[in-house]
Amino acid sequence: MSVDAAREVIRRCRLLAACSDEPEFTTRTFLSDSMRKVHGMMGVWMTAAGMDVRVDPAGNLRGVYAGAARDARRLLVGSHLDTVPHAGAFDGVLGVVIGLSLVEALHGRRLPYSIEVIGFSDEEGVRFGVPFIGSRALVGELDASLLAVQDADDVSVAQAIRNFKLDPSRMADARADANPLGYLEFHIEQGPLLASADCPLAVVDRINGRTAADVTFVGTAGHAGTTPMTSRRDAIAGAAEWIACVEALARGAKGLVATNGRIDAEPGAANVIAGRCRVTLDVRHADDSIRTAAVQRLRLAAEEISARRRLQVEWSPRLDQPAAAMDPQLVAVLARALEASGAPKTVMSSGAGHDAMVLAPYMPAAMLFIRTPGGISHHPDESVDERDVAFALATGTNFLNELAASIGV
Amino acid sequence: MSVDAAREVIRRCRLLAACSDEPEFTTRTFLSDSMRKVHGMMGVWMTAAGMDVRVDPAGNLRGVYAGAARDARRLLVGSHLDTVPHAGAFDGVLGVVIGLSLVEALHGRRLPYSIEVIGFSDEEGVRFGVPFIGSRALVGELDASLLAVQDADDVSVAQAIRNFKLDPSRMADARADANPLGYLEFHIEQGPLLASADCPLAVVDRINGRTAADVTFVGTAGHAGTTPMTSRRDAIAGAAEWIACVEALARGAKGLVATNGRIDAEPGAANVIAGRCRVTLDVRHADDSIRTAAVQRLRLAAEEISARRRLQVEWSPRLDQPAAAMDPQLVAVLARALEASGAPKTVMSSGAGHDAMVLAPYMPAAMLFIRTPGGISHHPDESVDERDVAFALATGTNFLNELAASIGV
Repeated sequence: MSVDAAREVIRRCRLLAACSDEPEFTTRTFLSDSMRKVHGMMGVWMTAAGMDVRVDPAGNLRGVYAGAARDARRLLVGSHLDTVPHAGAFDGVLGVVIGLSLVEALHGRRLPYSIEVIGFSDEEGVRFGVPFIGSRALVGELDASLLAVQDADDVSVAQAIRNFKLDPSRMADARADANPLGYLEFHIEQGPLLASADCPLAVVDRINGRTAADVTFVGTAGHAGTTPMTSRRDAIAGAAEWIACVEALARGAKGLVATNGRIDAEPGAANVIAGRCRVTLDVRHADDSIRTAAVQRLRLAAEEISARRRLQVEWSPRLDQPAAAMDPQLVAVLARALEASGAPKTVMSSGAGHDAMVLAPYMPAAMLFIRTPGGISHHPDESVDERDVAFALATGTNFLNELAASIGV
Repeated sequence: MSVDAAREVIRRCRLLAACSDEPEFTTRTFLSDSMRKVHGMMGVWMTAAGMDVRVDPAGNLRGVYAGAARDARRLLVGSHLDTVPHAGAFDGVLGVVIGLSLVEALHGRRLPYSIEVIGFSDEEGVRFGVPFIGSRALVGELDASLLAVQDADDVSVAQAIRNFKLDPSRMADARADANPLGYLEFHIEQGPLLASADCPLAVVDRINGRTAADVTFVGTAGHAGTTPMTSRRDAIAGAAEWIACVEALARGAKGLVATNGRIDAEPGAANVIAGRCRVTLDVRHADDSIRTAAVQRLRLAAEEISARRRLQVEWSPRLDQPAAAMDPQLVAVLARALEASGAPKTVMSSGAGHDAMVLAPYMPAAMLFIRTPGGISHHPDESVDERDVAFALATGTNFLNELAASIGV
């Protein structure tokens, strides 16, 4: 696989980044006008590569490159085409463009399976506050309740689909082929691990589980000048002590991450002791038992701190998402393909959620991570290294070939 | 001094509490319609007690009870008539009503000094975000820059004064008499100390100094799932460690209070490591050197924590207000008057700011605190005990008599 192809992949990603809902930045949300432009540009390239192109009722762009036989099974290769606000050029898009590039590299050669390159319409969840709308449609999870969710302008998912001249009542047409060979996703790592290990790529063996909760400490508001320290029931002080516990616990357990990303207090005046302090908690680990045990310890810590400080604590669960294992056989094929590319073989779990997580319960799934310089993503400075993309393309081609060999031409 | 007079004081405070900018609650801001009603009711009582009543150009209600001689020096007795939103019935108002009651108790007897009972138009600073507008006018500090400050509706202090049919250009008429005998303020404690010491009253010997600052910890926003704990520059975690220092330092120093009352973070998403976290700091102590040393230590702690965590810290001073000593001679007279009332003699510093703090640099000032059940103030449940008010009235009468004796009738 040549560096030229990698350069072309990067060039295309940067071209697509210019399709944006707002000037100066890359911001592309579910079924916006800028998404239609991306469909147009990708569609031209896909058609030129010999693919049949359509946009399904969930707004996913889908291009099928036929296999040698009419009834060939299908391999899905994809990622998402939407972005966060003020995004970079590679998160999501890179995986779709690499899928296209792998088909182009076949130069018309037919494999014993067909390839469907998919650009999902929504993974980030920016417009509706609900992620994975695109991939959920493929597995039949884009149901009536999800279609009814509204955006900030009170437009429902169903209406947004109709506004894009698609028909939400035909959502079954978005379902994936029965019995597919599997799903392969290329994605930037969005973290610093590959960069610090000096590795271009990693095979993802699982996507970490995640617990999210809102934790509120309740004390008594009081006058900051007249209330002695010993008489206080200070919600912020209690929350601060707990935040230190969260960090210490995560630092002490390998692979565990725990984050308090949002904090606010009431009444929130400089001269008033806080009566309430709300903190978000986000805990992730590849091993569900380690994650749930950590969350349990943090909950006990919050209760112990609150009891000692005469506070109450309110614990509101938001999410309890188990880890998603990638398919061992597909992972093994991908690992061999990576080794054959000449890049060091690295296996890691994904700290972030991905479309592969949604598809994994329904079909064999695998992911390849591409090094993210500086770990910077969800930011205009997001980048990829040309040589890393070349390694990814070589790994992809090796993967297609080994899969072909395992089936027999 | 009878319990009947105390009962009447409380009854009047509750009557005045019904004069409010909003129904159901007591909320009375600078020169609102409800303030005019209070002026009307107080004015009737003051006139009946033999006082000459006016509203000065800063909106302060002022009633003068003449002394025995035409050129008698003047004793000021006052507090404020404005309230916080959803206030109780006693913060401020009680001191004005007690002043009136002390004059009534003279039953026309003339003293060798005149008494001016003052109800300040603004101490809480709710409408303009700047406190002490009323008492500043008495000492010539209600200047052009303060007159130009605007409220949320872009109405300036000067315009609010004109809207109340007063003339801001005649602000000199609000100045206190030259060479007054002093200023005496009765006020609820707004804290739990007297209640926990089982004492009805305390002589205030000084009003604590106060430092306020905004402290912002600056790190790097990052993905909560993909950023290992060791790679983080988490602004909330840094702030939490510092908040624990603030609390520990204040707990370890007698009389020191330190409060982090407001906290917020950016970007403030549950799944994003915080890149910025802003915390307010409020530090108070009766001794300025202890307060400033504590602030200095907290600043060093913030810098040490930030350096160790690879954060930056931004320290924005908001206020550095020295402690205000009450006049030793007036305090001594008040302490003797308290002892003579039969209540235990207690002396304390005030953790909250009061009008007496504004007047103290210009004239001898003294304050008497009245026990606040449960330490509850700035709340509809704020209350006072009838017997405590009776002790306060007795103390006030003793004070007037001793002051008269010291001058000679």
